[in-house]
Amino acid sequence: MKDSTIGSWLAELGDRTPTPGGGGAAALLAATGASLVGMVSSYTTGGKWADREADMLAVKAESDLLREQALALAAADAEAFAAVGAAYGLPRATDEDKAARRTAIQAALRGAAQPPAEVGRVATRIVELADGLVERGNPNVVSDVAVAASSAAAALESAIVNIEINVASIKDAEVADGLRATVTELTGAIERARGIVERVREGLRG
Amino acid sequence: MKDSTIGSWLAELGDRTPTPGGGGAAALLAATGASLVGMVSSYTTGGKWADREADMLAVKAESDLLREQALALAAADAEAFAAVGAAYGLPRATDEDKAARRTAIQAALRGAAQPPAEVGRVATRIVELADGLVERGNPNVVSDVAVAASSAAAALESAIVNIEINVASIKDAEVADGLRATVTELTGAIERARGIVERVREGLRG
Repeated sequence: MKDSTIGSWLAELGDRTPTPGGGGAAALLAATGASLVGMVSSYTTGGKWADREADMLAVKAESDLLREQALALAAADAEAFAAVGAAYGLPRATDEDKAARRTAIQAALRGAAQPPAEVGRVATRIVELADGLVERGNPNVVSDVAVAASSAAAALESAIVNIEINVASIKDAEVADGLRATVTELTGAIERARGIVERVREGLRG
Repeated sequence: MKDSTIGSWLAELGDRTPTPGGGGAAALLAATGASLVGMVSSYTTGGKWADREADMLAVKAESDLLREQALALAAADAEAFAAVGAAYGLPRATDEDKAARRTAIQAALRGAAQPPAEVGRVATRIVELADGLVERGNPNVVSDVAVAASSAAAALESAIVNIEINVASIKDAEVADGLRATVTELTGAIERARGIVERVREGLRG
């Protein structure tokens, strides 16, 4: 994903191919939010920002890492998604086949819920970093804090539906409950992201 | 933008450079939403979808166009943003200079509000197309309809803050009111996008 051009990756996303799909898009949304957090922190160094420069350099370094993690999760998502397809494609001639296939499908579905859960965790951290930039970041780029929060919120919402479409087929109640708890956590981060956008907009209205 | 790799574009977005910035990110969010609408329509052709194939091919063609428009708007945004910087850089030695500079800044700010307004219009259309796919699209990819709507909502929210940061400096009341009216329209499209995500999630919960 990282080495694809934006034009060709988005064209592939729009085609009838299993990947890239919504999982890759969620990762891209998170990576975009991470970059914007990095940009705002980069504009809050030197001169009158000397008092917070150390913090801002730390935010920049962390945002670079979060961006890389998000992009790596796109690949993990594609692999996990392929494993689900492979499991559904297993033979079902005998009862033994069928039982093995069911087990394989369940394992693959559990695996496929992990990358979106991770994208959600990355996006949650981006929201936390953006939150600290609304008041402390360079006000010339405060609109970019809101764009970061909006991108992260979209990544979170995407992660949630990507988890929920798997949960619908997962039979292990404990695993399903664990994933539902993750969804609840991610929902809290969406609310926080929306609060950031509101605060930025109030500031712009003066 | 289209020919940059995803990795290098996002790294530049995160750097202390005027562009790409929040305007380019908004365009990328809209383009991502357009691609996902295209993907869902591509999965709703042939076989049991024969009854709606013509509609879906039209959605696919329009989504391809919207994606290209969004990507082109990233370039328009960067140009308009550069023009604002150039206007602020004009000489202000004499009163005449100052007056000319003020006029140039105001013209550049009005120009800079146009690409985000256009990104907002593209994203609004993506939301309309996604809305039609919640019930009519292939249910195997219904989560991607929600990801499309989330991406478009983030593009809309980003367009809004990008407009509002300009409106704060625009002195022509009529122009400012026109832009505020655009913001109100785009806000309506965000609500619609959130409704799409809710409907998809209700469907997944069964």
